[in-house]
Formats: sequence, C-alpha cells, structure tokens
Amino acid sequence: MAEGTARPLTTDGDRLWRSLMDMAEIGATTAGGSNRLALTDADKAGRDLFVRWCRDVGCSVEVDAIGNIFARREGVRPGAAPVLIGSHLDTQATGGRFDGVYGVLAALEVIRTLNDAGVHTEFPIEAVAWTNEEGARFAPAMMGSAVWSGAQALADAHARTDRSGCRVDEELRRIGYLGDRHCVPGPVRAAFEVHIEQGPVLERAGRQIGVVTGIQGVRWFEIGVDGTSCHAGTTPMDARRDPIRALSEFLPELHRLVDRHQPLARLTVGRLAAIPGAYNTVPKRATVGVDLRHPDAAVLDDLAAALESSVLAACERHGLSGSVRVELDCAPVSFAPECVDAVQRAADACGYHAMRMVSGAAHDSMHVARVAPTGMIFVPCEDGVSHNEAERARPEDLEAGCNVLLGAVLELR
Amino acid sequence: MAEGTARPLTTDGDRLWRSLMDMAEIGATTAGGSNRLALTDADKAGRDLFVRWCRDVGCSVEVDAIGNIFARREGVRPGAAPVLIGSHLDTQATGGRFDGVYGVLAALEVIRTLNDAGVHTEFPIEAVAWTNEEGARFAPAMMGSAVWSGAQALADAHARTDRSGCRVDEELRRIGYLGDRHCVPGPVRAAFEVHIEQGPVLERAGRQIGVVTGIQGVRWFEIGVDGTSCHAGTTPMDARRDPIRALSEFLPELHRLVDRHQPLARLTVGRLAAIPGAYNTVPKRATVGVDLRHPDAAVLDDLAAALESSVLAACERHGLSGSVRVELDCAPVSFAPECVDAVQRAADACGYHAMRMVSGAAHDSMHVARVAPTGMIFVPCEDGVSHNEAERARPEDLEAGCNVLLGAVLELR
Repeated sequence: MAEGTARPLTTDGDRLWRSLMDMAEIGATTAGGSNRLALTDADKAGRDLFVRWCRDVGCSVEVDAIGNIFARREGVRPGAAPVLIGSHLDTQATGGRFDGVYGVLAALEVIRTLNDAGVHTEFPIEAVAWTNEEGARFAPAMMGSAVWSGAQALADAHARTDRSGCRVDEELRRIGYLGDRHCVPGPVRAAFEVHIEQGPVLERAGRQIGVVTGIQGVRWFEIGVDGTSCHAGTTPMDARRDPIRALSEFLPELHRLVDRHQPLARLTVGRLAAIPGAYNTVPKRATVGVDLRHPDAAVLDDLAAALESSVLAACERHGLSGSVRVELDCAPVSFAPECVDAVQRAADACGYHAMRMVSGAAHDSMHVARVAPTGMIFVPCEDGVSHNEAERARPEDLEAGCNVLLGAVLELR
Repeated sequence: MAEGTARPLTTDGDRLWRSLMDMAEIGATTAGGSNRLALTDADKAGRDLFVRWCRDVGCSVEVDAIGNIFARREGVRPGAAPVLIGSHLDTQATGGRFDGVYGVLAALEVIRTLNDAGVHTEFPIEAVAWTNEEGARFAPAMMGSAVWSGAQALADAHARTDRSGCRVDEELRRIGYLGDRHCVPGPVRAAFEVHIEQGPVLERAGRQIGVVTGIQGVRWFEIGVDGTSCHAGTTPMDARRDPIRALSEFLPELHRLVDRHQPLARLTVGRLAAIPGAYNTVPKRATVGVDLRHPDAAVLDDLAAALESSVLAACERHGLSGSVRVELDCAPVSFAPECVDAVQRAADACGYHAMRMVSGAAHDSMHVARVAPTGMIFVPCEDGVSHNEAERARPEDLEAGCNVLLGAVLELR
C-alpha cells in the first residue's frame, strides 16, 4: 500500500476519457447521448466491453444472480474483505455519457493506475457495475444494489416486467448475465462511488469536488384515480365520474404543499396517463407518478401523508375511487464518517476545492450504505444537466474525481 | 300516401327486434356485443344480410364508390326526389348491438310496414347504410356520409389506411362493396336517422322519444407544453422549467371555464402524457388532448379562445413554451325545421312522451344535413352506455322510435 507519499498517486485522465468515449459509442444517440436501457442489447454490449477491459487488466470477473458484475483485483492479505468501487452502466432512454458509467470506468482506471504503479493493496478491490440503476425500463430503480443489499427479494426482482411484458430474469438470461454468484453481500471493508453531481450546486459554488455526507430520502407514488368511462359528447358534465376532475385539484395542491417546504423539498410529476386515452371518451382511469424527496425522514413522512390526504380528499369530493401506492421508498442515508473523512482527506491531499453536500439523487450507494461503510464523491456537470443527452462534464473534473476515488481507497487502513 | 288517418300506421316491433338480433349474430362478441369494424369480413357479412333482406322486400340496391348502400322502394310520382332513411352497420371493436344498426334496420322495417299496408308514397324511399361511421379502423369517422356530401374527397378517403396499412379502396374491393354508383348527392326530398341516444338524458327525463333539433359542435385540441428535462432529485425547484407546473394551473381553469357554461358546454380531457415518462425525470414535454363541445358556434369559438389563452398564459408564467393545435373541428348543425316538426308531429300522433334535444354525439346526419333537409330521432339506451358491449335498449323504445321514423316520412308532403 502506498503510505506517507508526499505527492499522491494520480490516475490517467486521458485514458479515463478515452474509455468513457469508447463506451459512449455503444447505444450512442444522434443527439450525442447514450441509450443503454437495462438488459437490452446495448446494455449487453456495454457490459461485454467492461468485462473485456477488466480481464485485460488481470481482474477475475464474477456475475451474480441479478446481473451485478464484480471485477476483482486481489489484495495481499489473505481473507481481507474487499473494497467495492463502482456504479452502473445502464442509462435512461435518452441518457448522457457520464451518469453511472463514469463511476464504473473510474474504478477501472483506479485499478489500471495501481497496476501501472505496482501498488499492492492489503485488501482486494472490486470494480462493480450494478444492474438497472436507472429503473427506466424495469421498476424499481437501483435494482441490482437493492437485491444485493437485501432491500428487495431476488425472486421479486426477477419477476418484474417492462411495458411489453419481458421479465427481468428472462432478459438477464437472454443477454448472458444471469450469473451464478450468490447475490448477497459478504464482508465488505468499504465502498466508494464517484458520480457526476447531476445538479447545479458544485458549479454554482465554483467547487471541483463534492464530499457527499449522505443522500436525501426519496419516495415514489403511483396515484390511481378510477371513475367511469363514457362518451364525451353525450354525457352531461354533472353525470360524469371523471378522474381528471380530481387530478385537476390535487396537482396544484401538491405543488403548493412543496412550495411551503423550500428549499429542501422536491416534487416531480414524471408520469401521467389517461386510460383508454381517446379524445372522445371520458377516461375510466388516470394515473400520476410522483417523486417526492427530502433529506429529513420526519419531514418526508409528513409530506407523504399530506400528499395522500390531498389525493383522497379530491377523489372523495368527486365520487371517485383514489389509491396511492408507494412504488419506491428510500429513507435518507448518512454515510459512514470514516468514508466521508477518507474522501475529504484525499481531496485535500490533491489540493482540490471541495465542499460537503447531501446528494439530491439516489444512487446505488444508498443501498450499499446499509450493509457496508460507504462514501461518495461528486464532480460538477455542466448546468447540472443529467438524464439528458446534453449531459456534459469536463475531463479535468472527471480526472480530479477519479484521483479522489483512488486516494480515498488508499486512505483506508 | 296515408292521409288523415285517425290512428297512425305502426311498425312491427317484434320483427324489428328479430332483425336486430339476427344481425347481432354477425361479429357477436362473448360479452354480448358486436364487432363489425368497417370493411372487415364481419362488416361484409352484415352488409350481405342487409342487402338480401332489402331485395327480399322488393328494393333495388345500389352501392356507391365509397361503399354506401342505397336500397330503393319506388314512389308513384315520376322523378320525385327520394327520402333517405338509415344510419350505419359498422361498429366499434367492442361495440354494442344497437349503435347505428338500429337506424338501418328501422329503415328496413319502415319499408316492410309500407309494403304490408299497401301504402304507396309519392316519393321513393331509400334505406341507406353509410360506410365506416365509427372511424374505429379507418379515420376519419363518418367517412361514407362525408364523401357523399362533399366534405371529404373520394380519393382521400380511398387512400386512408388502417394500422396494418390496408387501404380503404382495396378493402372495399376485397369485400365486394366498391360500387359503381357516383358518390354524390342527387336531389334529396329529406333525410331521417333514428338512433339510440348514447347518453342518459332521455332516461333521466323519463321520455321515450328525443326530437333532435341539431348536433353540437365539437373541437379537438392537442395542447403541448415544452420545458426542460432534468433530474428530479438534484434540480432545485427554483431551477426548473417543468411543464407540469403550467398543466396544474390550466387544467382547473379549463374546468372552471366550462362550469360557467353549464348545462350546454362539455369538456373532456381524454389524453394525457408526460415525456419521457420517468418518475425521476422532470418531463421535457407534457401533452393534453381536449374534446370541447357546444351547440352554439359562437360560444364554441369563445370557449376555444379562452382555452387557448388560459394555456398560453400559464405557460408564460412559468417560462414554458405552449402550443394549442386543433385536431378536429366540426361546426354545430341545426336540423331543418320542416324535418324537426315532422318528427315532433309523428311522436305526438303516436302519443309518445317526447322532448326536444341537441345530439351530444356526431352522426352521419351531421354531413347529410349540409346537402339535404334532415332530422333525427333518439330513443333511450340503458344508463346512457354506448360504444360498449353492454349497450342495451328496450324493444318497446326501439319500436317507438321506428314508428316515429315511419310517421315522420309520411308527414312529408
């Protein structure tokens, strides 16, 4: 292990950038982004490329039963628990070139750097690519780390289907990533994930490194409103049970509720549907997908309760049947002080302008933190834009984050 | 012609009902409805049965270039313009047993009754079955009457395709109904269509006959709101351009607007979408499909203008880009007073409890009324349910409507 060096070991930012651009060719979109939805042919091609690169640098590669990939560089102390570093390779349908993939390829770059420098760590290092972090094709998001950490049952995850009815386990088998490693966490020394911030905070503050102290809580709600389908032309307004009536009342109420909890609360209505979806038919059902976030667990609970009463009261006023189903529930997470400090010291040792911050987005580290000491590192992205083909990050910031990842790993004793 | 009779001539309700049930066997669904989508094999079988019945009662049958069927019973005055009575035989995919087919078979029953009673009218009577009224397989709806009346070009209609790419003209030829009669309206003395109401008004009012004075206007709007897609967790609320913010404001405004124009105005939000449609992504675009109706053309224009300003103002308040596109625009129709009066007198002569009303749904009579004096007769259907396999109508109401149809024809001088 590299100890007491005056100048910290640093990674090769150009090599990291080339890996990122090579990976971005897989599922490249015409608008400059990437489309590697989980368990598609493009996801398979991305995984295959990553596995080949890991084997090329001497790692042994294992895949578990939910498709998580672990590429292992051995340590020198027999039986030592590994340090996990990594993120995810899947993207949104119109995703960017850095979200997730940066954390995976930075882990690979850390291993390459250690190899080149002839540094042997006491503990093994495993570069990990978690399955289906985005949840854009199969709900829920962060599926691979959820199953691995015990937050979701394997059989439940396997049985999830996409909109066309394809099952997770069948798609894993189809692309060759239904692995035989048990999907359970053995002892883990620590885990680190480096990621673009996906928000505007670092850029606005002029900082290069975010020392992430935790992740705000997030809850997804599928709101359903059931009424009665009828003919748009012949049914008088007062003879209708129209789900849109309730929706028109609770949507503005939800926004007013969250406005009263600024700047910390966040509300997003990302999904909307009217069924059957014809101009001349009053819908029999409307569905609304809501993402609600807050860093404080008690406030998040209060907001969730207020959301549910607002929806149900609006439905009752119009004689409709309403339901609020929690699709995802991630409590706020505080990272292990040991890992947060390791990240801070690594950033300081490199002389980077860093700040402590709470992650606005959920990440695989949210699940990992429940079973292992965990830390995260953020780097800025242009205008905070992410989940978007226009997502951009500067090569020098990506290199800085990769150096802090390497430094944090080497800070561990 | 039967003149000055104390008791009006009446049709045979049992015979009408048997014809309806025989026709319902063609394309019968397990849920008790009918599936005779336009220009399918089932539609051909329904047409063939109708044509056979018409020939059996001595009518000559002609088919025009869009497949409309005209079964003619001659009049006694040479060169007199015919009276058209009829509706359509095609159904929705999960349609009922009365919508449309009732008006066609009631026309046949009128001819049978006149034959049995030995009544000779001065003018010819043509029982007509219009092609593709439903528009469920080929857009637009009311195609046969639209082409016949000049509202749509024949070549345009012929070139329309269904979802699998089949063309209207090829399907007409395939089923043997690409006729050689010119698809243009010659002189027409008058036209009548009897139809189930497809709404709850007659049933609620306890009336057996609706004397239809016209058809309300209908306009479809596709509203689009464009913002900026971003991450639901990381983007502060005050840094968003979220289309749902505008939608949450204009949806309740549109409902309040229409509430101020009750009982005549009708607003339906049948289509809703957020794009890309992920829980954790602020949508880049939201779309809303609105169906707006009113019987008064000037009021409909006012409502449409208010809808557009409400949408655009809400978008402007939130820095969003809004658009309102008219997808369909059918002006209100007022039926000829002569025909409305004939229907009213026929209902009165039979002693039926009748009321004047505006049709909420569009019908072939909407197009026919632009080239000929036209009237419609409504009868109740259970709970106002239509476009549904559970559509039901009582035999005695169907007989009453058929008697009014016969009476209205005989009222003409």
